[in-house]
Amino acid sequence: MNQTRSGSILGAGDAVLAFDVGGTDTKSALIDRSGSLLVVRRTPTVRNIHDPAGAIVESIATLSRMHLDQWPLVMPAAIGVSVPGLVDERTGIVHLAASLDWQDVPMRRLVGEAIGLPVSFGHDVRAAAAAECRLGAATGARTAIVVAIGTGVAASLVIDGAPHSGDGYAGELGHSLSDPTGERCPCGAVGCLETIASASAIARRYSLKSGIRVAGAREVLHAASAGDPTARAVWAQAIQALAESLARLVAVIAPEIIVIGGGLAQAGPALLDPLRAHLDALLSFHRRPRLERAAFGENAGLIGTALLARDGAHETLHLTKTRRK
Amino acid sequence: MNQTRSGSILGAGDAVLAFDVGGTDTKSALIDRSGSLLVVRRTPTVRNIHDPAGAIVESIATLSRMHLDQWPLVMPAAIGVSVPGLVDERTGIVHLAASLDWQDVPMRRLVGEAIGLPVSFGHDVRAAAAAECRLGAATGARTAIVVAIGTGVAASLVIDGAPHSGDGYAGELGHSLSDPTGERCPCGAVGCLETIASASAIARRYSLKSGIRVAGAREVLHAASAGDPTARAVWAQAIQALAESLARLVAVIAPEIIVIGGGLAQAGPALLDPLRAHLDALLSFHRRPRLERAAFGENAGLIGTALLARDGAHETLHLTKTRRK
Repeated sequence: MNQTRSGSILGAGDAVLAFDVGGTDTKSALIDRSGSLLVVRRTPTVRNIHDPAGAIVESIATLSRMHLDQWPLVMPAAIGVSVPGLVDERTGIVHLAASLDWQDVPMRRLVGEAIGLPVSFGHDVRAAAAAECRLGAATGARTAIVVAIGTGVAASLVIDGAPHSGDGYAGELGHSLSDPTGERCPCGAVGCLETIASASAIARRYSLKSGIRVAGAREVLHAASAGDPTARAVWAQAIQALAESLARLVAVIAPEIIVIGGGLAQAGPALLDPLRAHLDALLSFHRRPRLERAAFGENAGLIGTALLARDGAHETLHLTKTRRK
Repeated sequence: MNQTRSGSILGAGDAVLAFDVGGTDTKSALIDRSGSLLVVRRTPTVRNIHDPAGAIVESIATLSRMHLDQWPLVMPAAIGVSVPGLVDERTGIVHLAASLDWQDVPMRRLVGEAIGLPVSFGHDVRAAAAAECRLGAATGARTAIVVAIGTGVAASLVIDGAPHSGDGYAGELGHSLSDPTGERCPCGAVGCLETIASASAIARRYSLKSGIRVAGAREVLHAASAGDPTARAVWAQAIQALAESLARLVAVIAPEIIVIGGGLAQAGPALLDPLRAHLDALLSFHRRPRLERAAFGENAGLIGTALLARDGAHETLHLTKTRRK
């Protein structure tokens, strides 16, 4: 599935390739020197149980060629690749990406060998946070929290303008304790926020309590709007759990702004208005952050990855520059 | 009360004056060029309801003269002052220090005018964190959480080696939500960690439940060790609440080390051993931090303030250098 974009989002700079590899889909784009995403391709993330990382590197190489064949006059200076999981941007190693079946993958090196361009390697949510802080909803903020709510819940803490990585382990808001008496999370801990407030948890909890199977949180929200008491309760519990988790972060981190992205943010005011009210009620003397919807929606990770690629374009020397076949 | 110290703690550098102004006591020291705290004075923090900040500035000037008169050959290059509360180190302004009855006090300017030395102005817990990270238990860590548990509970997040200030609003771990069904905190919020796990909360909760008046958490710990079930329950609730709050921070911040300081840290293994076990039980794939007792105990804030004073010794030009009378 392709989606053509017009207009410069990133501003003038190097042309780069950007890949946002998700557990389900991979988004990729070629960005030209004006900063426009020439085309955004969305393709199913390839699976190979025998060589899960190798298959994705190969797919990145194939998609790169497709982008470059389509725009033969655009010469990318670098490539950026972001993935979910425990990602150490500094070393370029993925410690663990459960949704991709990866463990200890030296992703930056593998992509560099396959593509022959300087590689910037990132984490999907921290890349999205970079996009929101440099070009989007959090522009100008020195301290921000960017939350992605979808299949899971993840956060990126932006401290003095830079997403905090914690050697790849930071930002696991979805796997932070919400309800000590709650259910066991697949991660092994009890009462994780993700078991209550992710889009998939909202759908799962509603199906469980109502006996009505729903495909996603959108249907739960529709049912809640139509007055379904079970749907209202499940939605309210998710909002309350999110508000409590955010209030705790506000006390300790004191962000100027909290940006909400990911699939659930498409609910718009149905999510943000009660979340803002609940968060406000939980705070006292604390600095109250603005609570805003992400500017870049589902492309935030891709745009942030393109920014990382531009940052890294002149950092690494490569011997081979055989980027076209 | 004076306490003489020997040996270089800070290492060679400028001689400086350091003040750690607390809600009850003020600790002050003159540090010589070898980095030794020549003497640590502990004096009651002066109170003047008509001019709370002015009275303290005057007391800092008086104490400075006492230090300098005692060591006439030591020429301090700068002075450091730390206070609790909402402290913006960048602007030198105290937004709010409830324990000192201060609001919007331009402390750096006031001290500079009174003392005629370059002034570094800090927050007590972030200064303690700087001491622990540069010279103490967290030396070498890039990401750390330093927690002070005493009358209140406060934390400093150290990100890439620097305590995070959030324009003065960060680190309010004591006023982050612990128990949504808990009691109302004097701050106005409900169920703050400080209402369960501060040293004073432990004493207060034990007195309330047992009918036995105790002066402090130490007596509760003694009673718990002697088998008093109420004391054991109060102590266990405090440990559990601390472990839950720390586990949440571990998920999002991924510190390499958590340092526990403040008065309650004097409990040593009776605090740290169960806290470590409870924290461990709440984590799954997260990076497990070391949990260590603060190296500098009650002088951490003073030592950190002296480090800040040294950092700032050559940053500011002052017209007057009339530092001796």
